[in-house]
Amino acid sequence: MKILGVDPGSRITGFGLIDAEKLKFSYIASGCIRTKGELIERITTIFEGISKIVVKYQPDIVVIERAFMRPDRPNPDAAIKLGHARGAIISAVGSRGITIVEYSPNQIKKSVVGKGHALKEQVGYMVRESLKLNKTPQEDASDALAGAICHAYHCL
Amino acid sequence: MKILGVDPGSRITGFGLIDAEKLKFSYIASGCIRTKGELIERITTIFEGISKIVVKYQPDIVVIERAFMRPDRPNPDAAIKLGHARGAIISAVGSRGITIVEYSPNQIKKSVVGKGHALKEQVGYMVRESLKLNKTPQEDASDALAGAICHAYHCL
Repeated sequence: MKILGVDPGSRITGFGLIDAEKLKFSYIASGCIRTKGELIERITTIFEGISKIVVKYQPDIVVIERAFMRPDRPNPDAAIKLGHARGAIISAVGSRGITIVEYSPNQIKKSVVGKGHALKEQVGYMVRESLKLNKTPQEDASDALAGAICHAYHCL
Repeated sequence: MKILGVDPGSRITGFGLIDAEKLKFSYIASGCIRTKGELIERITTIFEGISKIVVKYQPDIVVIERAFMRPDRPNPDAAIKLGHARGAIISAVGSRGITIVEYSPNQIKKSVVGKGHALKEQVGYMVRESLKLNKTPQEDASDALAGAICHAYHCL
């Protein structure tokens, strides 16, 4: 089963693709969609980037990190930008009939590192170990791969 | 020039299309995309609905109401849902190379009714009068048509 993880962000959206069979994972690809310009241009770039990845790799399922807002620090501006990025990703995937599943950031960290409040570096390290990579992928790509691994643990 | 106005919402997204030449407007079409289910399903429905409208009517330009959050009442949950809807609309339009312009709700009301804090009913009434319609379109469709009329006033 090919699982595509996506870590949404209006400036950088990470993606990571793994092949999972039972509890064996193998790395296929990962990277970042970097955007520039005004929000409208950024969102179009994300939609087109995810569309290309989906067409190229034909994932069976797509995992997106659930939007999480700290209730003690409401930030509508950040929320609306994240919403735009997620809207573009869902549009690119959902319109092709591919199932989308969501996990919270803490669920992803817990299944990859073993604890819900793991640091970014710990996530990167465990992604590298789990997929037997020579180096740790860029942060957003690592987070996306972590989402894919999380789904593999949950459903295989 | 064919102008498509869109009033984004995760439950109901209004649309309204006018033909504008100098200061003469004529009504082409309007309506609502009504969504149901979970957010992912709703966003996919909006993306597919706007895609169909754009393919069918081939607008020259698309007007979207700018996201406006009341600073005195921050609501990250509403912000993120609105962001998703706008992300889907921008994806459907931007990926086809059609220019998107934004106006604030107050700019739209001001150019259609003459004041920035007009009531919904006043917007509906003025949309009906401007386009010589027999009845006032549904609220979200009226708001979308108001966006299109606003752009016509600004650029013609």
